[in-house]
Amino acid sequence: MNELLTSIVPLPRSITASSGVFTFDATTALTPGPGTERVADWLRGALGPATGASLMPGAGGIRLRIDPGLPAEGYTLEISTSGAGIAGGSASGVFYGAQTLRQLLPPATLRRGRVTSGPWEVPALLIVDEPRFTWRGVLLDVARHFMPLPDVLRLIDLAAFHKLNVLHLHLTDDQGWRFEVPGRPRLTEVGAWRPTTMLGSRGHERYDGRPHGGFYTTDDLREIVAYAADRHITVIPEADMPGHMQAAIAAYPELGNGFDGPVRTAWGISEHVLQLGPEGLDFCRAVLDHLCDIFPGELIGIGGDECPATEWETSPSALERVRSEGLAGAHELQRWFTGRMAEHLAGRGRRLFGWDEILAGGAPPGAVVAAWRGHEPAGHAIRAGHQVVACPDITVYLDYRQSDDPGEPTPVGTRLTLADVHAFEPVPPGLGAAEMGLVLGGQANIWTEHLESARRVDYQAFPRLCAFAEAVWGPAERDFAGFSARLPGHLARLDALGVNYRPLTGPRPWDARPDAPGNPRTLPDRLAELHEMTADLRRERR
Amino acid sequence: MNELLTSIVPLPRSITASSGVFTFDATTALTPGPGTERVADWLRGALGPATGASLMPGAGGIRLRIDPGLPAEGYTLEISTSGAGIAGGSASGVFYGAQTLRQLLPPATLRRGRVTSGPWEVPALLIVDEPRFTWRGVLLDVARHFMPLPDVLRLIDLAAFHKLNVLHLHLTDDQGWRFEVPGRPRLTEVGAWRPTTMLGSRGHERYDGRPHGGFYTTDDLREIVAYAADRHITVIPEADMPGHMQAAIAAYPELGNGFDGPVRTAWGISEHVLQLGPEGLDFCRAVLDHLCDIFPGELIGIGGDECPATEWETSPSALERVRSEGLAGAHELQRWFTGRMAEHLAGRGRRLFGWDEILAGGAPPGAVVAAWRGHEPAGHAIRAGHQVVACPDITVYLDYRQSDDPGEPTPVGTRLTLADVHAFEPVPPGLGAAEMGLVLGGQANIWTEHLESARRVDYQAFPRLCAFAEAVWGPAERDFAGFSARLPGHLARLDALGVNYRPLTGPRPWDARPDAPGNPRTLPDRLAELHEMTADLRRERR
Repeated sequence: MNELLTSIVPLPRSITASSGVFTFDATTALTPGPGTERVADWLRGALGPATGASLMPGAGGIRLRIDPGLPAEGYTLEISTSGAGIAGGSASGVFYGAQTLRQLLPPATLRRGRVTSGPWEVPALLIVDEPRFTWRGVLLDVARHFMPLPDVLRLIDLAAFHKLNVLHLHLTDDQGWRFEVPGRPRLTEVGAWRPTTMLGSRGHERYDGRPHGGFYTTDDLREIVAYAADRHITVIPEADMPGHMQAAIAAYPELGNGFDGPVRTAWGISEHVLQLGPEGLDFCRAVLDHLCDIFPGELIGIGGDECPATEWETSPSALERVRSEGLAGAHELQRWFTGRMAEHLAGRGRRLFGWDEILAGGAPPGAVVAAWRGHEPAGHAIRAGHQVVACPDITVYLDYRQSDDPGEPTPVGTRLTLADVHAFEPVPPGLGAAEMGLVLGGQANIWTEHLESARRVDYQAFPRLCAFAEAVWGPAERDFAGFSARLPGHLARLDALGVNYRPLTGPRPWDARPDAPGNPRTLPDRLAELHEMTADLRRERR
Repeated sequence: MNELLTSIVPLPRSITASSGVFTFDATTALTPGPGTERVADWLRGALGPATGASLMPGAGGIRLRIDPGLPAEGYTLEISTSGAGIAGGSASGVFYGAQTLRQLLPPATLRRGRVTSGPWEVPALLIVDEPRFTWRGVLLDVARHFMPLPDVLRLIDLAAFHKLNVLHLHLTDDQGWRFEVPGRPRLTEVGAWRPTTMLGSRGHERYDGRPHGGFYTTDDLREIVAYAADRHITVIPEADMPGHMQAAIAAYPELGNGFDGPVRTAWGISEHVLQLGPEGLDFCRAVLDHLCDIFPGELIGIGGDECPATEWETSPSALERVRSEGLAGAHELQRWFTGRMAEHLAGRGRRLFGWDEILAGGAPPGAVVAAWRGHEPAGHAIRAGHQVVACPDITVYLDYRQSDDPGEPTPVGTRLTLADVHAFEPVPPGLGAAEMGLVLGGQANIWTEHLESARRVDYQAFPRLCAFAEAVWGPAERDFAGFSARLPGHLARLDALGVNYRPLTGPRPWDARPDAPGNPRTLPDRLAELHEMTADLRRERR
């Protein structure tokens, strides 16, 4: 089997080589069957510019069809001397077959202009493929650093190229609010920018002295949703609440508990959280309504992570709420709040998506939990009947440093190598078969405190996101040596796609960020911290 | 005439309204005539994603054809109730007609995903249009700040949207060398990055302490060329020589006159210039050969600007060259060097393109001159029989500040408002008709000392590049009030295209760059400086 064939990422389930080649050139036809027309339009745009092929319907060439007998996201790709036949269980399956076809062609055909004259040969073969998990996600934090719309669309392309199907968009945080909400203009006038930004991790007290800001209009978000849908990616929005809301409170101080200050400029967790009187809840419901109007997916993210209850201990509105709802204390407020948001979303036919902190005291029925603090909260959620998306920080937080090399830019978190990500297992140990079904899949999270540009995002995300794709698409048993052997062939594709990935040989001189020092952690240290952070869940289990 | 119609930028020569509308929807056909197939492929990619239209050939709909009776870049666009007919004197003319059609559709159809459900109506009309100048250029400086490949392609799209047809790519400078040259690996290993970057204009002595680097592979450049060609833009590369070469000399000290230091981190002009012995000339010829291999256009840029002769006064290789060539002194070395490069390019069937400094002492026959220091050097070049591209700094240098607002980011240069750019006249006063023919057109230059990202480039370039497009496409007589009335409609298009343009109301709080202070100049001050800089040309004329 030739080099191209053996470098497909993520690795298909089964590849059977055949004899002969399919010759692709500027005259190749592309004929969509019923229900695959949009995939054909997309493929025309993906293959046309670099090959000069108009890809009109005709005899031979590439044929797309839906075969309801296949798994919804599964596909077969049959290359013979007469053409390429792609069948999928749905348009999604056809789309993934087409992505595999792109990888079988030479990397130059992935470019957006013609750099070689062709024709291009694809070896005859049969691929039968389907994913292990239905949730193959990536989170992009556009709150800490705003990412311009074209860069978001580009990340969607790169995620789809790796057969991921969920983009979790972290739209708000203490350091910025990034979308318009009708009737709340100050969210973008005030909340969407900060006068300066912390440089590097906390503890260094460095700031860049440069204002940073930006936000998406409603049409921008609709465009992101539609662009992603054309690439079979569901976008799940997240407006973080009731913590991580300092940017919103800076815009509307009445949403807080007396705080009257600016958007946060330091990293870390703000203690300034939502007030839980009617005004606070109405605001959140209006925000969720707006997100429901834009995002068609069933799940709407409310975050729910890292919310200190300190202010609630003394805030009149919080204490009034504790009294009126008969809660045992301020520490029960978040659980109560999350329940109200879940109810509101249910009224819109949606379900709540939140970080595993929402498990404390019991998460609302039907809530989907993003388990970021390890297998333990994931198991806790599953035993409580919740669907789970695994995204443990020590395995799939792509802002974490890729090596111990002192040239790594702003090294934070634990060391998280390509091999660590490739070995990612979304299913917690010790589950029964029925419980395993509650694991929707996994998600790689790109937090952007230290990633100020798409180039930096590329550096942190690639090639680790390639390894991640293999972990959530491929089988539980994986071969890192095999992946490593395929990777150079795949990196040639990333070169053609203009991706600023981290070289396998380590950071280049211009990747370093001496102006933005990090704070590397050891794994034992971080594990101990996570153990402490999840002590409440263990107490509940006893 | 409706609002859309009257907001086309650049304004077409003639618009005649008719009655009825053409209804564009997902079923609309697109039928290319002979020679327009590539335009059709491009238009399918441009209109399809936002409309859901596959735009297959069929009856009615959009029809493209070449009409040799029209000017090469001219077109007619006829909209009737039965469809849209575009005829162009060449594929370029058809392409411009298609760009106008995009502007006649609602802005949402310019997005890359479907945000409205259509159908979309276009009023019936006849447009007859052609450009005034054949050179409608924009320069992008990727040397001072490297611009990632996807951002370069995006700028090409935006330039083409405004019917510009030349991208002048400034690939090297004292602060960075941005492309591979066979056999010269240190150009990219050493020359493509610097350890720190000056923040703001000179005189503040601020540095960011952050390495910066990046370069284009040969395939990257080929992709840029091909992508631009699909959009009827010629890419003209520039490797600046014999000055502005400190990055190359840092990589290969033997190219200099004894300098053995790093890539320059401050802005301004390096005194460390090319040595003019055989090694220096051979290097430059090899660089130009490589550029000739990649870039198919007739012109190859050698820069030739701002080259101090200081080092040559004492450099043994320079003094030897003065002796062997019988020059009157080191000040004649640059003219001699430029002549050798012109000869070398002529051997490859190309012509030399350089800044107006190459006029000193006489530019090589056939050289095309980019006149950046005002009408005077432009007139000087024309009288010497050279073709000229006008790009006077005080009218079209888009890094110059857009207003006196203290919130303008890093305000440098003279104030260069939208009205100033719109009033740009490429033809120097006092020319005869034959001389006027030597004015190829105009070019807006985006220097990037203070533009570290595509977002900042957007801010400086737009909407001034819209005004520039009108100045080089439209007639000599222009109406700024009319342009201003059309602009809001056009800005809605830029919104849909994701352009971070400067709002007409002025900079937003997050546009400011207090960390990178500027150095605003007054026009009289700058004019006096330009007068002094061009004194040598006046002496030659006397």
